[in-house]
Amino acid sequence: MTDFSAIKAFAFDIDGVMTDGGILCDLQGELYRTFDAKDSFAVRMAVMNGYPVATITGGRSESIRQRMLGCGVPPEDIFLAARDKYVDFKKFCERYGLEEGSVMFFGDDLPDIPVMQHCVGVAPSDAVAEVKEAAEYVSPFPGGKGCIRDTFEKVMKQQGRWNYDVQEYKRRF
Amino acid sequence: MTDFSAIKAFAFDIDGVMTDGGILCDLQGELYRTFDAKDSFAVRMAVMNGYPVATITGGRSESIRQRMLGCGVPPEDIFLAARDKYVDFKKFCERYGLEEGSVMFFGDDLPDIPVMQHCVGVAPSDAVAEVKEAAEYVSPFPGGKGCIRDTFEKVMKQQGRWNYDVQEYKRRF
Amino acid sequence: MTDFSAIKAFAFDIDGVMTDGGILCDLQGELYRTFDAKDSFAVRMAVMNGYPVATITGGRSESIRQRMLGCGVPPEDIFLAARDKYVDFKKFCERYGLEEGSVMFFGDDLPDIPVMQHCVGVAPSDAVAEVKEAAEYVSPFPGGKGCIRDTFEKVMKQQGRWNYDVQEYKRRF
Amino acid sequence: MTDFSAIKAFAFDIDGVMTDGGILCDLQGELYRTFDAKDSFAVRMAVMNGYPVATITGGRSESIRQRMLGCGVPPEDIFLAARDKYVDFKKFCERYGLEEGSVMFFGDDLPDIPVMQHCVGVAPSDAVAEVKEAAEYVSPFPGGKGCIRDTFEKVMKQQGRWNYDVQEYKRRF
Repeated sequence: MTDFSAIKAFAFDIDGVMTDGGILCDLQGELYRTFDAKDSFAVRMAVMNGYPVATITGGRSESIRQRMLGCGVPPEDIFLAARDKYVDFKKFCERYGLEEGSVMFFGDDLPDIPVMQHCVGVAPSDAVAEVKEAAEYVSPFPGGKGCIRDTFEKVMKQQGRWNYDVQEYKRRF
Repeated sequence: MTDFSAIKAFAFDIDGVMTDGGILCDLQGELYRTFDAKDSFAVRMAVMNGYPVATITGGRSESIRQRMLGCGVPPEDIFLAARDKYVDFKKFCERYGLEEGSVMFFGDDLPDIPVMQHCVGVAPSDAVAEVKEAAEYVSPFPGGKGCIRDTFEKVMKQQGRWNYDVQEYKRRF
Repeated sequence: MTDFSAIKAFAFDIDGVMTDGGILCDLQGELYRTFDAKDSFAVRMAVMNGYPVATITGGRSESIRQRMLGCGVPPEDIFLAARDKYVDFKKFCERYGLEEGSVMFFGDDLPDIPVMQHCVGVAPSDAVAEVKEAAEYVSPFPGGKGCIRDTFEKVMKQQGRWNYDVQEYKRRF
Repeated sequence: MTDFSAIKAFAFDIDGVMTDGGILCDLQGELYRTFDAKDSFAVRMAVMNGYPVATITGGRSESIRQRMLGCGVPPEDIFLAARDKYVDFKKFCERYGLEEGSVMFFGDDLPDIPVMQHCVGVAPSDAVAEVKEAAEYVSPFPGGKGCIRDTFEKVMKQQGRWNYDVQEYKRRF
């Protein structure tokens, strides 16, 4: 079993990680994503149990912001339209005084590699080959369908922090 | 074959049970689900054949209410934004004078477990491990694609109540 | 190889046949379906090569009408909100002077069986058991992903009428 | 390994190639597609590394144009409502002074074959039989889920042009 005891925070890409990569396009070019309920629940569990959580995505859509807010991610930790993702990753680490090596970052494609080289990189099972190679951990689950849930849960269970408190959940979400 | 002869009513979660867990998000953060026609038909069959049917979901979207109304679930048995699901479950049981052990509840994630501990719990094949363990019956079908249909049909056939009457169907739906 | 030489027309259900059964619901309860491009092309090929084509569905959405018009199905052969499907099926047969046994009808659930008992019934691979039993032919492909395309193509090729004429296609669609 | 050293440009159909063939229909008959993030990234990589890229589709929706513009395809190389696709293909070749045999065209259904007979045809794994036969290369990946990404990447890697430059990417997209 991989040792996740040093992980103190989570950050992740959206397309192909929190989603299966599918992007629905409307007549104005606005883009819509489909999120998974169990993956979303894992993000809420991390927030509720005190982990800093960020999303760093090339996507620009307000729908991503809305969904991440709904999962409890603070507005300042939602990085949209990220092009040089490592710049945003460093901001996130500085804000919480995190050492880069204590943060888990989930990515699936080339723009994610620079971040993964500085922290604990995780790749969904359907990430591209270069990303899997750059990752410390490759999930048995694909993006948008279990990668986030399974890995968050593994980390938090190892640390004894996978705690679901219905009253606290009711209060926050 | 599992004995379902004592079942008198059905209640179920939405995300990951009546859907595959996918949630489409728009620019305002409004969420949309995709329902399966065969699963929906099973809900109508249960309503048409006289079973009390409820949905108890953490989801808040009016689209869930609309879809469940379209399946014949009475407005007062559609519990949206449920956080402490067992509270709503008890209301449903009281309304119809049901013993908890005679109600089947379908869930797939941690917030569903407290209900499942008080009744006949059913888990889709892709429920999380803790839910499967808490369930009396694990369907061979996943959420949003057969779990509801197959289980409703099994229960109703065992009880000789899986009756499709085209005139009655026309009148009600 | 099944002998399809007597087939003179096609009729089909929508949900679970021309779609995979998924139904997206909006805030007003309006329902949206996803159609497959290759299945849609097969419908156009049948229309273009002179077969009467009808859809008989319990669905009420204008989006179904729009999509079927886009596939070349005449407005009067699009039967929405069908409850007693055999009534509509008979109208279709009378309109074109078709013997019931020369029409292929595609269905996947209980409301389709009464029609299938009067004609050449076809079931997608993921139809319910009773429908498969009532069908003369069970496609190796599921609803919304090949059942319509594969069967239409088989019928039309056996009859030497699977002809794609780019100029005619351009003129009609 | 197939030799792709002569390829100088890419052109492709949309439905069943850049998508899995699924088409969502609204009440006015407007059609919406879902695109894959990794496939889209491959199109941007081709544009960024100097390949002419065109899409030639029977689809008419503005949403296709918007998505292709978002991938960096020039407006004049987005051919919507194409009925005789080879006509549009020739325009594309003439615009860039390309020999037809140096262009890769991706198609999945009968209307794509006339183009494929004049260039290097590529078929997704789920293309229809006639198209696979007409293709020089059949991808191990299906439409909308890897066919474009895998093939673009293979061609560009063979030619030493699969180069991701974060600053250039930031500047262009």
